[in-house]
Amino acid sequence: MILLDGKALFQQIKINLSQEVHQLIKEKKRPPHLSAILVGGDPASQTYVNAKIKACHEIGFQSSVFKYPLDVTQDVLLLKIKEINQSEDIDGLLVQLPLPKHIDSNIVTHSISHQKDVDGFHPINMGRMVLGLNCFLPATPCGIISLLDEYKIETAGKRCLVIGRSHIVGTPISILMSRNKERGNATVTLAHSRTKNLDQLTREADIIIAALGVPNFLKSSMVKKDVVIIDVGIHRVPSEKTKSGYKLVGDVDFDDVSTKASYITPVPGGVGPMTIASLMQNTLYSAKKVIYSHT
Amino acid sequence: MILLDGKALFQQIKINLSQEVHQLIKEKKRPPHLSAILVGGDPASQTYVNAKIKACHEIGFQSSVFKYPLDVTQDVLLLKIKEINQSEDIDGLLVQLPLPKHIDSNIVTHSISHQKDVDGFHPINMGRMVLGLNCFLPATPCGIISLLDEYKIETAGKRCLVIGRSHIVGTPISILMSRNKERGNATVTLAHSRTKNLDQLTREADIIIAALGVPNFLKSSMVKKDVVIIDVGIHRVPSEKTKSGYKLVGDVDFDDVSTKASYITPVPGGVGPMTIASLMQNTLYSAKKVIYSHT
Repeated sequence: MILLDGKALFQQIKINLSQEVHQLIKEKKRPPHLSAILVGGDPASQTYVNAKIKACHEIGFQSSVFKYPLDVTQDVLLLKIKEINQSEDIDGLLVQLPLPKHIDSNIVTHSISHQKDVDGFHPINMGRMVLGLNCFLPATPCGIISLLDEYKIETAGKRCLVIGRSHIVGTPISILMSRNKERGNATVTLAHSRTKNLDQLTREADIIIAALGVPNFLKSSMVKKDVVIIDVGIHRVPSEKTKSGYKLVGDVDFDDVSTKASYITPVPGGVGPMTIASLMQNTLYSAKKVIYSHT
Repeated sequence: MILLDGKALFQQIKINLSQEVHQLIKEKKRPPHLSAILVGGDPASQTYVNAKIKACHEIGFQSSVFKYPLDVTQDVLLLKIKEINQSEDIDGLLVQLPLPKHIDSNIVTHSISHQKDVDGFHPINMGRMVLGLNCFLPATPCGIISLLDEYKIETAGKRCLVIGRSHIVGTPISILMSRNKERGNATVTLAHSRTKNLDQLTREADIIIAALGVPNFLKSSMVKKDVVIIDVGIHRVPSEKTKSGYKLVGDVDFDDVSTKASYITPVPGGVGPMTIASLMQNTLYSAKKVIYSHT
């Protein structure tokens, strides 16, 4: 069994990106700049934003966080986004989700210019992905492809099962895995809550991407030998073995499934860091205008 | 075996749409208006455009065709599209494909405003479809869903195999069949030229959507009893039995497969008319501004 070490690959990507920053500075250009909008004080959201800002610091990107109280109005957010969309000093913008219920998340996130949408959530980026055109790929699916690529995992002609059809992970990764690209060309099945006989599908799969959001769901009895496992889930569960009283687990029962898998992502340290890696790469692409030429 | 009669359903939809036109006229509004751009004299393209214009006439829609010679420049087309985008008298616009090689089809079709893109090919419409938002659905996939809906074919939890991953049929219908909607919720597998053991997949499927572009590809030996068959292919093949010396066949060997299928689309008269039906419905939606409020 070989670990698909997202943390190590992220370190490598950070080194490459910081060299790109040095090159930009040598060319008398400013470093890439990522902005985040954070509403309210949810600890998980705070942690995610902090991790992204920390990565910016390590690479040498500029970063900024615009914090708003929970009762901020939608109009205030839309005005800020409009300002950032027009700013020549900011290359990428993300709004940390979830947003409070009085705010329409779709309206807010889709008001980010698709040219600065480094999360890859905007309909234009999603549609261009489906059509095989240059775009900002959604960060988590893009990170999964990079990880498969790093370990040269053959995907063409393989049976790939994606479990979970969310808009930001399951559905887009199913599209990316089946498109006609080197790390694609898989025969993809998209399973979800209405799927019957899921364990038959898991046993047929050469590659399983688990993104259903159920802790320790996938067991070794459900998979075939030498399966490749990508675990997108991350859950905090009580544990007597740790000082903190909890530990992080994924959608895959790692200890159990890793006995049968050829490759498997750990949780944490697998898909999570790769999501941030993609976000950083997208921010660089935006600064260098390689996806869209900002007009 | 029950025929999924796209021709008959199209007749019904035309009656419904013409009643909608009467209603609009009663309200002192103009009828919906569909425009088509046709480049060159390719007989198949001419036939397709004629069929769409004929449907407009039958329903009472306005229509217009802008014809250009094969050597038209891309700029001339873009200028015409810009004019139509801004016109308050035209609700829907399609550019008949294929375009000559000196013209970039993507640039031309994507310059159509997404608010008049009744073919549903624009990245914004494609992306909004992936995200489950209101949009113009691509015409052929949308027509397939309408046909399944008309015959109340249960799709939730069924194994659906889509063969062919084109941007305009295979990929979008795989997304529509798996989304969380009544005529969706299927467990979809998307097969393509790199898929191995295709006949194993076809034998497991409850619903097969054949869109690979190979005449008479699917045989009864490859499917299970009572399978539902949607045939997207349309090919002209030589025949001694017809006066014209040719006949139209699909990707499915109809005579053979229909002995085992519970429901099957004929070719012609199945998916083809449903594509035009969707185009007409999208044009009405555009005129009534039910998808986008033209601002």
